[in-house]
Amino acid sequence: MRRIYTGEALERKKPVIVLGATGLVGQRVIAMLEGHPWFTLGAVAASDRRIGARYGDAVQWKVETPPPAAALDVRLTPATPDASAQGALVVSALPADEARELEPLWAQAGAVVLSNASAYRMADDVPLIVPEINPDHLAMIETQRMRRGWPGALITNPNCSTIGLTLALAPLRLFGLRRVIVTTFQAVSGAGYPGVPSLDMIDNIIPYIGGEEDKLETETRKILGGVLPDAFQPLGAKETRISATCVRAPVRDGHLEVVSVELAARPDVDDIVRAWRAFTAEPQRLSLPNAPAAPLVYREERDRPQPIADRMAGDGMSVSIGRLRAHDTLTHSFVLLSHNTIRGAAGAALLNAELALARGLLD
Amino acid sequence: MRRIYTGEALERKKPVIVLGATGLVGQRVIAMLEGHPWFTLGAVAASDRRIGARYGDAVQWKVETPPPAAALDVRLTPATPDASAQGALVVSALPADEARELEPLWAQAGAVVLSNASAYRMADDVPLIVPEINPDHLAMIETQRMRRGWPGALITNPNCSTIGLTLALAPLRLFGLRRVIVTTFQAVSGAGYPGVPSLDMIDNIIPYIGGEEDKLETETRKILGGVLPDAFQPLGAKETRISATCVRAPVRDGHLEVVSVELAARPDVDDIVRAWRAFTAEPQRLSLPNAPAAPLVYREERDRPQPIADRMAGDGMSVSIGRLRAHDTLTHSFVLLSHNTIRGAAGAALLNAELALARGLLD
Amino acid sequence: MRRIYTGEALERKKPVIVLGATGLVGQRVIAMLEGHPWFTLGAVAASDRRIGARYGDAVQWKVETPPPAAALDVRLTPATPDASAQGALVVSALPADEARELEPLWAQAGAVVLSNASAYRMADDVPLIVPEINPDHLAMIETQRMRRGWPGALITNPNCSTIGLTLALAPLRLFGLRRVIVTTFQAVSGAGYPGVPSLDMIDNIIPYIGGEEDKLETETRKILGGVLPDAFQPLGAKETRISATCVRAPVRDGHLEVVSVELAARPDVDDIVRAWRAFTAEPQRLSLPNAPAAPLVYREERDRPQPIADRMAGDGMSVSIGRLRAHDTLTHSFVLLSHNTIRGAAGAALLNAELALARGLLD
Amino acid sequence: MRRIYTGEALERKKPVIVLGATGLVGQRVIAMLEGHPWFTLGAVAASDRRIGARYGDAVQWKVETPPPAAALDVRLTPATPDASAQGALVVSALPADEARELEPLWAQAGAVVLSNASAYRMADDVPLIVPEINPDHLAMIETQRMRRGWPGALITNPNCSTIGLTLALAPLRLFGLRRVIVTTFQAVSGAGYPGVPSLDMIDNIIPYIGGEEDKLETETRKILGGVLPDAFQPLGAKETRISATCVRAPVRDGHLEVVSVELAARPDVDDIVRAWRAFTAEPQRLSLPNAPAAPLVYREERDRPQPIADRMAGDGMSVSIGRLRAHDTLTHSFVLLSHNTIRGAAGAALLNAELALARGLLD
Repeated sequence: MRRIYTGEALERKKPVIVLGATGLVGQRVIAMLEGHPWFTLGAVAASDRRIGARYGDAVQWKVETPPPAAALDVRLTPATPDASAQGALVVSALPADEARELEPLWAQAGAVVLSNASAYRMADDVPLIVPEINPDHLAMIETQRMRRGWPGALITNPNCSTIGLTLALAPLRLFGLRRVIVTTFQAVSGAGYPGVPSLDMIDNIIPYIGGEEDKLETETRKILGGVLPDAFQPLGAKETRISATCVRAPVRDGHLEVVSVELAARPDVDDIVRAWRAFTAEPQRLSLPNAPAAPLVYREERDRPQPIADRMAGDGMSVSIGRLRAHDTLTHSFVLLSHNTIRGAAGAALLNAELALARGLLD
Repeated sequence: MRRIYTGEALERKKPVIVLGATGLVGQRVIAMLEGHPWFTLGAVAASDRRIGARYGDAVQWKVETPPPAAALDVRLTPATPDASAQGALVVSALPADEARELEPLWAQAGAVVLSNASAYRMADDVPLIVPEINPDHLAMIETQRMRRGWPGALITNPNCSTIGLTLALAPLRLFGLRRVIVTTFQAVSGAGYPGVPSLDMIDNIIPYIGGEEDKLETETRKILGGVLPDAFQPLGAKETRISATCVRAPVRDGHLEVVSVELAARPDVDDIVRAWRAFTAEPQRLSLPNAPAAPLVYREERDRPQPIADRMAGDGMSVSIGRLRAHDTLTHSFVLLSHNTIRGAAGAALLNAELALARGLLD
Repeated sequence: MRRIYTGEALERKKPVIVLGATGLVGQRVIAMLEGHPWFTLGAVAASDRRIGARYGDAVQWKVETPPPAAALDVRLTPATPDASAQGALVVSALPADEARELEPLWAQAGAVVLSNASAYRMADDVPLIVPEINPDHLAMIETQRMRRGWPGALITNPNCSTIGLTLALAPLRLFGLRRVIVTTFQAVSGAGYPGVPSLDMIDNIIPYIGGEEDKLETETRKILGGVLPDAFQPLGAKETRISATCVRAPVRDGHLEVVSVELAARPDVDDIVRAWRAFTAEPQRLSLPNAPAAPLVYREERDRPQPIADRMAGDGMSVSIGRLRAHDTLTHSFVLLSHNTIRGAAGAALLNAELALARGLLD
Repeated sequence: MRRIYTGEALERKKPVIVLGATGLVGQRVIAMLEGHPWFTLGAVAASDRRIGARYGDAVQWKVETPPPAAALDVRLTPATPDASAQGALVVSALPADEARELEPLWAQAGAVVLSNASAYRMADDVPLIVPEINPDHLAMIETQRMRRGWPGALITNPNCSTIGLTLALAPLRLFGLRRVIVTTFQAVSGAGYPGVPSLDMIDNIIPYIGGEEDKLETETRKILGGVLPDAFQPLGAKETRISATCVRAPVRDGHLEVVSVELAARPDVDDIVRAWRAFTAEPQRLSLPNAPAAPLVYREERDRPQPIADRMAGDGMSVSIGRLRAHDTLTHSFVLLSHNTIRGAAGAALLNAELALARGLLD
């Protein structure tokens, strides 16, 4: 049976174990846990050589707001589970290779792992969730438990450039989403720290991000597709063709995407804007703490969205859209922007954790 | 009869009158005239209030190489023609509104005007020339003279973002160019000086450039189309649909464009690269001084072209292309880069001037 | 008699008339008035041609947080006073030339004007106030009223680069402040919008800001000096020599300053840090709403302060200092950073307004 | 006996072995060897794991001009000397730790090593040379050979921020150079590649560069001081006190430095400018290939020097100076700019090599 929370704080907050806590996404997770009504920082886990160090000493803090005072004195613990993992809530901001090895250990030990890592996103028994779009994909956990015998679970969120795109595309499925051509302008925080060298970003642009185009194409199809009762199948997205070109641009935070689509129904521009503005879903109905009131914000100004002005819309959890135009090359083009380390990573994992709790998966 | 030059210097260089000489494009024209084998700086014309001033005092030089010493002491003359305009060679880097008023006066006075301004590009009796693509459009001068009664002529070059795109697309017409979706990343020099405020370009991107998308779409169709003996008609480009989204990015020089195309023949990637690499045309055959040996340079590296590394290819006159991929959304995507104030503006006007001279239009 | 407020909200908020409301500093003032416990937005005044327009239509909002919803529908009123000016509270973010003409009209009409403009800062009957340093300079209003016959008053705050410097220097006067050499790295928001062209700020630095060095030198001496009962005299600062070099750097917000000083007492580094950390003053004692708990924050990290990490310290009202070192060229060097449009402009004028109210000047 | 070259090409060019050829400085050395009248690229040496690789495959080329075609196919050789090292000319662009180990091996094997590394700069038997200032310090090689028994020699050039400063200060010694306060704005290429993360350079400045301030202070004193016949002693610089603050700024190339000095003679501004403009020295008299005609260029414009406009002055080998002002805090302030990887590194080592050849040290 599903438990429904309606936005109030929990009496006893659930502790969160953060894996990969010193990276940029881990930092965001820790910043977002401060004052969270349901969750509290339980442990910060790191690779072996720094175990025991103060978080404040181990981290090179790069979030623009100061680190939560409470987090600074927490000691780093191992990234491998012990007996206490049973029933634990784990948010993983690990690099893909470490995630591949460590996340199954936590699920095996009984933890529910909300992962931002790419390692298992495309596995056909691992849900890849954007809570406003495909919460029903959580049903795949049944298959996962059956196949892998995990008492816990592994739930993933998509790549930072995928989330904004899928949220903007989801309401367009009603109009018959046939083709998508997307070009991204991705912020440097997407590459972590140290990440992109400044010699590549002063007076320059890099039209290539390793592995990103494939993620954007395949993850989008998985998310937009349906799911069978006991096995995933990308039903709806079979008819959607997607091609992406991913470019790194000199911006700190905020992925901008130029999207051209072919909509079979050839709707009016006004119909599309109305569909975007009307779009809310389960996270809004459940009043999940990190659910933005408006997942999609359409801007009328001719030069929006922009990273500086729009990345913090909805506290970084809304996707801003603008410049919708009809044309006859495909049928429409528009521009979207979403905060890549909030909606696109840390906030995505936390919203998934909130969804999991609201659905009783953490009981 | 056509006079053919084969790259050697002229015995007596033709003086060039530069209109709009203090702007960024005018500065590039003056920089490129230094050491030119056929042309020499004849006069620099400016708006009324600065007439008589030294060029060196009037200009805020922004080209990365120092201004030619000889140009610094030239006095600014009026931007309106006098008797000496008959037979003169004029390169216009005027803003569109001034060009609209002044360029006809020069053509009326007997000058051949090579204009970078947008004012008359789309007029159906004004040739809009990229010498490697449509030198035959010069035939439209006959119509122009007939209709307007000008003893001189007005020849335009396209917008800075159009030139790179048309050069990359021209060899693709053989494969049946049906659809083009293009997203640009345009350098700030394209907006002149002072141009784009730095508050819009530090940690930001502006997904809008006034009028640019329309220019990119309509100019491209005009250039890629054919021309009837005595009147322009965009024959070939009728079947090509183009949709553009133009974005300003924090780069000094060099427009990068992400292009997706539908080619009816669905050629192999190798066939397309071969077509690009084999592409040369009249400017190369005539050895026009500013004609690059290779108009199109295809780069194999996975992260090229980039503004820093590639904008000066062919002394800023070659278009660099990379990342060609086949897909089933349209048929192919690629990335191109061209120097917006050299190939995209000053060098374009000069190459047109060289073509005009080689074809005997300046006799 | 002085009325003391201790941080609680006023029962009836004082309306503030904002002059120059559409500029960057005016925008910050309006952003900072949202939720202010003592003040509320009363009117937004602008130049003639836009009177009657909605503020939301007239402004190009550049603050990183969204504009207060309540401000968007306010109509612009004239920047000249009418009968209601008597007793009004005016915050002026006008350009210097407009301030020179308009501010006296408001003081003449009975308003108390808190000005961020440079026009009257150095007049010897106009207080130039940093509330933590020289609130006693408010005594100059007596001279001002006597000389000029104004029923109102004009109170100024210093230039954006001066405020951070004077706050860091104020506690050093105890050690005998003899010489100051300062080099600034000033953010582009200090030049307003459109302000600095991006062609000057991509891959570049401009080692010159018109008039800035003189302001930084003369204003600092005025602020750090004493005041005689009925006429200003820069007593204490007579013995302090200051030399400034002001440089524009590609940063949005936050002026960084490298300061070398000669302190007669040659104190230990620890003594200086202690003096900075102990520094609080009247705004803190009065709990003025915009007074930061710690006006000066000393950072131990070897690479701080930095614009990104430190400009929002104390909600943008604290000055961050770091890298204090002793040497024998003068005696010490250090680095400071302050937010130029908050502590250095909008917040400075508002803190002055709060001081004026707390001292009963608005009764 | 000293052989004097007067600018003409050598009949048989001397091959240069480049150590650390794939780094940013090594790339510049290779770019500058193209077309060099005396030298030719002999070998490119690298660390073990890449020996045998094509230079073109091993390098991530970051110089803004394309790599010399001839260099691309050269195979990497070991960075340790073999029998052929006797009499060889070696330019070292190694990191400091590798230089500490490997450079003595080459000198021991009979090579003359021109090193850009910091490892041995401050050793009191190693000349630290700026050819326009202290070519007489080459006499220290006698001590070096005596003490270390090397048949070859090790000659160093200073740190990138030191060279510009010492060149500007050298002519000021005539006026009694007592104190120097310098604040640098250093380009990111100074940190190599990948070097400075872009998250530290977008909307930010880092007021700290590890080890840089100490280098700038101590190297400057060594260079500006005299040398005794058989042992180095910093005679002249004993009376000069120097304090530096080094800051990393978002610029690709070109270190800008704000310098305040105390000159005992308190000369007029005009006298100083005259001294700078008159300054030439042995490299100019010998017409060394990389010697700029004017080592120091004084700019009258109020906003120069700037990185974009001035870093390539004298093909990157001149130091540009501007904004000289007299004041009473010390006596004068000015701004200088020099290209950090040309004059400040690769060009410095090559100019030292040219000096060594002209003086017969390579015979």
